[in-house]
Amino acid sequence: MKWCRMAITDREVYGILDGDEAVVVQGSPFGTYTRTASRMKLTSAQLLIPVMPSNFYAVGVNYSAHIEWANTRHKLAIGAPKQADIGYRSPSALIPSGASIVIPKDSPGPVEYEAELVAVVGKKAKNLTEREALSCILGYTLGNDVSERSWQASDRTLWRAKNTDSFKPMGPVIETDLDPMHQHIVVRVNGRTANAYDTDKMIWSIQHYISRMTRYLTLYPGDVIWLGTDGACEPELKGGDRVEIEAESIGILSNPVIKEA
Amino acid sequence: MKWCRMAITDREVYGILDGDEAVVVQGSPFGTYTRTASRMKLTSAQLLIPVMPSNFYAVGVNYSAHIEWANTRHKLAIGAPKQADIGYRSPSALIPSGASIVIPKDSPGPVEYEAELVAVVGKKAKNLTEREALSCILGYTLGNDVSERSWQASDRTLWRAKNTDSFKPMGPVIETDLDPMHQHIVVRVNGRTANAYDTDKMIWSIQHYISRMTRYLTLYPGDVIWLGTDGACEPELKGGDRVEIEAESIGILSNPVIKEA
Repeated sequence: MKWCRMAITDREVYGILDGDEAVVVQGSPFGTYTRTASRMKLTSAQLLIPVMPSNFYAVGVNYSAHIEWANTRHKLAIGAPKQADIGYRSPSALIPSGASIVIPKDSPGPVEYEAELVAVVGKKAKNLTEREALSCILGYTLGNDVSERSWQASDRTLWRAKNTDSFKPMGPVIETDLDPMHQHIVVRVNGRTANAYDTDKMIWSIQHYISRMTRYLTLYPGDVIWLGTDGACEPELKGGDRVEIEAESIGILSNPVIKEA
Repeated sequence: MKWCRMAITDREVYGILDGDEAVVVQGSPFGTYTRTASRMKLTSAQLLIPVMPSNFYAVGVNYSAHIEWANTRHKLAIGAPKQADIGYRSPSALIPSGASIVIPKDSPGPVEYEAELVAVVGKKAKNLTEREALSCILGYTLGNDVSERSWQASDRTLWRAKNTDSFKPMGPVIETDLDPMHQHIVVRVNGRTANAYDTDKMIWSIQHYISRMTRYLTLYPGDVIWLGTDGACEPELKGGDRVEIEAESIGILSNPVIKEA
């Protein structure tokens, strides 16, 4: 089942996809809901980010081929993570599929995409075992962890590098029925395949991350966990580009790129 | 004027302090509001964190004497920050004044307080100059950036060290009329003064932080910016302790400490 979130005149509503339409829902996937008689054509609906998270988690480095690529391309010396330590991003940077990634005019670049599978928490959770871990997850969407590499190198934190307004495209929808450890993720820049990888190459599984996280913290409905990227993040993104991230089971997260004048 | 947030039977409401009572308000300080005829005795009200932020910013190191202390006490080599780079904490770790800081049973310690002034954003803001910066701020509260130093040293991120459930006490109220650069902050552990400092020693002013942040990101009503701590963070916190952070103009953020059995 696929959930979307849409803007309808003065309201924001959840919808359930049915072919090329969305059935408007009263309530939300995080509580109780009922299907209404109202339907929206997906081509005319204004899709929002599928959830506004209270807590925005990101695993950062979680794939070996990405570490190797980053070390070569950006002259770094990142080692394999010794343990599953979660990081953070800021909800203020989120934009939906279709909205523009805006590169600030003073960005020295390069600005690169990072294509990620995203787990969306559906239920409050603490102290889950790895076997129980996925029971708190509502479903999965896609994220683009857009990164400004000069700022990533120069700044003490990732604030500008990864949390500049519009740097966190997320969507298009939440798919509730998929195996997160067996997804094939494809990236296209201007229609040409730029990268592709399989989530079974994760260093630490999503189950391990959730189990370890919930030993210390409570997960809440709507929280999101971005699961990292594999391989290269080239070519760099420039004004006029369009970057698409696709998983067959979820759909396409598609965003144009603008360089601020 | 002092704003608080309270739990009343099945609702969470904002209140305006008036002597030893709070006038219950319809609406919130982040939009329109009206005072109701209802009042609560502060001694019997259940105070909540004064705001649940969408984006939780923390400057981290912003005072020289704290850097010197941390380098000596924890054998670090932190330099003065070269520029005002903001960091992040997670809303899931927030607790109000009165609630318990719970140290996980596997914490090697030491666990230390960090007493901070906290700015609460009242209005959406982008591209503010330093002169305009404070115009987006509703007021100020206090925060305790509780930190587990073993995990801070061992982990790739600050997730467990600073974002374990209950590690972010914030409150008790938001004071709208104070000068953030001229506050005297006092810490007491079990009633004895443990640390005191003045906010005029900030390396980067709050105005500079806000101006720099809003060049790249939008601040939203309810976002919080924790402004760092000065001096020492001793003695370490142990089960049975009570830690209090006070600013005369705001009040006392007081939390007992429990070691998980």
